[in-house]
Amino acid sequence: MKRSHQCGALTHAHIGETVTLNGWVQTRRDLGGVLFIDLRDRSGIVQIVFNPAYSGDALQIADRVRSEYVLEVTGTVVKRDAETINANLPTGEIEVRITEIEVLNAAKTPPFFIEDGVEVDESLRLKYRYLDLRRPEMHQTLKLRSKAAKVFRDFLDGEDFIEVETPILTKSSPEGARDYLVPSRVHEGEFFALPQSPQLYKQLLMVGGVERYYQIARCFRDEDLRADRQPEFTQVDIETSFMQQDDLLPMMEQLMVKLFRETVGVELETPFQRITHADAMDKYGSDKPDLRFGLELIHVNDIVASSGVKVFASVIEKGGEVKVLNAKGCGTWSRKDIDDLGPYAARYGAKGLAWIQVKEGEFKGPIVKFFTPEEIEALRERTGAEEGDLLLFSADNKKVVADVLGALRLKIGRQLGLIDDNVYKFAWVVDFPLLGYDEEQKRYVAEHHPFTRPKDEDLAVLDTDPGQVRAQAYDIVLNGYEVGGGSMRIYKRDVQEKMFNALGLSPEVANEKFGYLLDAFEYGTPPHGGIAFGFDRLVMLLAGRTNLRETIAFPKTANATDLLMDAPSEVDQGQLEQLHIRLAPKPVAPKA
Amino acid sequence: MKRSHQCGALTHAHIGETVTLNGWVQTRRDLGGVLFIDLRDRSGIVQIVFNPAYSGDALQIADRVRSEYVLEVTGTVVKRDAETINANLPTGEIEVRITEIEVLNAAKTPPFFIEDGVEVDESLRLKYRYLDLRRPEMHQTLKLRSKAAKVFRDFLDGEDFIEVETPILTKSSPEGARDYLVPSRVHEGEFFALPQSPQLYKQLLMVGGVERYYQIARCFRDEDLRADRQPEFTQVDIETSFMQQDDLLPMMEQLMVKLFRETVGVELETPFQRITHADAMDKYGSDKPDLRFGLELIHVNDIVASSGVKVFASVIEKGGEVKVLNAKGCGTWSRKDIDDLGPYAARYGAKGLAWIQVKEGEFKGPIVKFFTPEEIEALRERTGAEEGDLLLFSADNKKVVADVLGALRLKIGRQLGLIDDNVYKFAWVVDFPLLGYDEEQKRYVAEHHPFTRPKDEDLAVLDTDPGQVRAQAYDIVLNGYEVGGGSMRIYKRDVQEKMFNALGLSPEVANEKFGYLLDAFEYGTPPHGGIAFGFDRLVMLLAGRTNLRETIAFPKTANATDLLMDAPSEVDQGQLEQLHIRLAPKPVAPKA
Repeated sequence: MKRSHQCGALTHAHIGETVTLNGWVQTRRDLGGVLFIDLRDRSGIVQIVFNPAYSGDALQIADRVRSEYVLEVTGTVVKRDAETINANLPTGEIEVRITEIEVLNAAKTPPFFIEDGVEVDESLRLKYRYLDLRRPEMHQTLKLRSKAAKVFRDFLDGEDFIEVETPILTKSSPEGARDYLVPSRVHEGEFFALPQSPQLYKQLLMVGGVERYYQIARCFRDEDLRADRQPEFTQVDIETSFMQQDDLLPMMEQLMVKLFRETVGVELETPFQRITHADAMDKYGSDKPDLRFGLELIHVNDIVASSGVKVFASVIEKGGEVKVLNAKGCGTWSRKDIDDLGPYAARYGAKGLAWIQVKEGEFKGPIVKFFTPEEIEALRERTGAEEGDLLLFSADNKKVVADVLGALRLKIGRQLGLIDDNVYKFAWVVDFPLLGYDEEQKRYVAEHHPFTRPKDEDLAVLDTDPGQVRAQAYDIVLNGYEVGGGSMRIYKRDVQEKMFNALGLSPEVANEKFGYLLDAFEYGTPPHGGIAFGFDRLVMLLAGRTNLRETIAFPKTANATDLLMDAPSEVDQGQLEQLHIRLAPKPVAPKA
Repeated sequence: MKRSHQCGALTHAHIGETVTLNGWVQTRRDLGGVLFIDLRDRSGIVQIVFNPAYSGDALQIADRVRSEYVLEVTGTVVKRDAETINANLPTGEIEVRITEIEVLNAAKTPPFFIEDGVEVDESLRLKYRYLDLRRPEMHQTLKLRSKAAKVFRDFLDGEDFIEVETPILTKSSPEGARDYLVPSRVHEGEFFALPQSPQLYKQLLMVGGVERYYQIARCFRDEDLRADRQPEFTQVDIETSFMQQDDLLPMMEQLMVKLFRETVGVELETPFQRITHADAMDKYGSDKPDLRFGLELIHVNDIVASSGVKVFASVIEKGGEVKVLNAKGCGTWSRKDIDDLGPYAARYGAKGLAWIQVKEGEFKGPIVKFFTPEEIEALRERTGAEEGDLLLFSADNKKVVADVLGALRLKIGRQLGLIDDNVYKFAWVVDFPLLGYDEEQKRYVAEHHPFTRPKDEDLAVLDTDPGQVRAQAYDIVLNGYEVGGGSMRIYKRDVQEKMFNALGLSPEVANEKFGYLLDAFEYGTPPHGGIAFGFDRLVMLLAGRTNLRETIAFPKTANATDLLMDAPSEVDQGQLEQLHIRLAPKPVAPKA
């Protein structure tokens, strides 16, 4: 016997054929001595039948099987009786009358049902991931991921990109997140680092004349984990020479068109909207705006600066701002509903949340009395406030106002049903600032990374007014998620040195850490730039999931643990000795 | 201006067209005020011309460029004068008369010429890898590698394999080579390990019902490096459920057929020869025999056991063996030539190398006198020795005889011109022993790995005579290189426990290290098996190279160093503290 068909592939076209199937027992039912088993393989489910009339010894053997037993069976495909046809199953018109069976392996009762939509604690699913993966929805996601990778590759191969593998054992780099380190056995006291991205290698490939490079690359960041972060993640890494931003972005749009067409059958419209970083922050309070709906944030500084609302005036005096979100139709909310927004806003840094309802043609609420009728009228006009609207005010520094109203916008948009889950709304966010000032470190840090090219017209002020310099950098956002980002890169030594200087790196440190790159720039480096797509997140969105772990075969938990293999784990002392390291002594707990 | 064509793509078909090119200056020649530049991009080279008659200011600018400058030029494609046509260049019929030029970047004189076949110290090439990669042969190899990966994927996608990414941060495993370790910041005193292969994950994917999996996977072994090893390497990792060895091997042959057809245009013959491990060792003294030529090793124990050559008799008495290599036509070698083989044989463990020449119809040499005429006649018949042949004898334990004569066979085969470099001779080596006895550890170790399935008919003696058990394991060899290997896997808990027991793992240790796998086997694990191809080595053979480093964009040196980035390197004390480790104190040098 040798497998002839996949379970899920059998249809009425196979009626009369003798088939051999492999698979797992999904369910079994004994109806008066006739045994019905739903046999599952990765293609789907088919009903197989054991009947004393034709199954002989196979019935006795089948009688002992239980859920998740692994079988090999041979039998004949027959049409089901009309009344037993199952229209919900692709194979529902037929069943297979079994004459031979072999039990390939037995199974204990699994810790959870192998079926979709089952409510199981995630840590149990991760510990028994090999069972969890048998669920059809997990299998579909793995398959989607594989297909998505293929579409990326097919597109990029077609555009003459060369796939190049770059090292995993590489050098620790001071800018960016924490590195994972790997002690060297051969070089005592030295360490490799796992790459946070192949950034420098791909730039060196451009210096090396590769011109068009890609890699579906594993990257590593030892960060404090959030729901949407993993210690290791996958990015589709792309770099090109001699292309400008305006050449690259449309090509990447075509890549997304192909991806969505061939994985989920969705036709994207191009060109994608482009929005400057300044506009995105201004209108949506986010550098990854969800553009499936409006609800834009509205400036009202000029209107409220001299009003009687003292906190507004004082915030504006200190250089902050006051903005309004017009929550259309929420003016009918109860006081409690409105008050409930307060703690939510506070999570994003709001110290309070002022509001005005429009009821019976009038502005109502605790702060209304502090406005003059002219100010009320100006607010009405600016915000387009109509009967039944709710105006939400945030007054603080720019960042807090953006965070608070950006979050409220998403919450209220969701609540008002403004967000269509079937719409994929892509956009490019462009003209990012090159640098951001880090209050903690008291220095500028790179918004993207230190290799991002400044806009030509802003280069002149890189030394004198670094905060004003815009970058030739772009993010690609989808429905409120950043799914990729990139930039044109610096390719001249003097510009790179200026950039390191702006970041507070002394020439000595810059040379020690990135000397090879500065050197490379002197040997004929072409203008180059690229992008990286967050592959896990794209697959998550394609699969309609909200958790990255659902898209990864063997993910780690939020505290970076592999529950299946129990990693990380302790190792032998001998291994540490070979690596020339010791464990630091554990701190002694202070006595009570 | 925007690049319109690739340099190497221009032909007479473009004559009359205005084109814009990007590239690097390969060479420049000034012929009486007319400037000829060979402009190179990754597609090839084209001659561009600056002439006062049509180039205007561009000539002055061009006059300043040197080798490896990066240019953007626009001009008209024209036919060359008949006498200047260069038949060696695909673009040799035409040249481009330049009217506009922009110098995109300057270049210092590189430390070596950017051209093929250049003799440069490899460490200099690795330090300036970004220049080395500009050489056409390096570019061709990168391109070949990318193409090979695509062929693997296309084939496997076509056979319904799903590409699944498995973790790089995983668990240290006690069997096998040394692991690279990664200290955990979150879990004090614990470590991840980088995978030596995705072996256990791919088996768990089979438990998870994936049925057909592949991955082009990065793997890591902290071994003492040899010329053909890298600390990180790439394998094409494949696993299937419900397939037997006899299903899988022919499918993999078709994969190789496609690979060789689509990368180097070679048609392989199938089916590949299959040779048992025992036969391979016996006839070729190697488990990865080069089958492009004969020169098989010949057993002569029975003939020489009672001869006057005492060392032969004594070796046989101790259970060793005596074998002969008939070096056809080497009987005319001088005594010195023959003696020179001694030190070579000694490298493989030979204590001496006895020989007989057939000259003027007679056996000649120091040991001839110890044989009876009957023994001489028997040797002549067994070895097919003819006028002008040279018989080389090795007498020792089986392993040494195989190593010595296996190595001599290759050396002499090469020397006699018996090896055709244009032939690709694949074979499967099958029926490997399951276990080998390790004299150092005084225990059995797995020949492949501890998850290899024993042959059904040998399973009965796994407890009693483990050394006799053959494995359902197979290597794929090509021209004397092992390019892949795999096995059917154990999929039942009791068999896996027996295997761990045979390897000397106590049930406690087996459970601690592999408990999740033993557990998994109880939940309906399908029969499964697979293979992994050594991707670096396959690319090396496809590219006609002899060094793995030539096939890797950024390889490490023999002592595991990245000369370009200078990795590994020292890291900040603060990083180590976060990881809860310290450097071991360096041993103090003993005083004189």
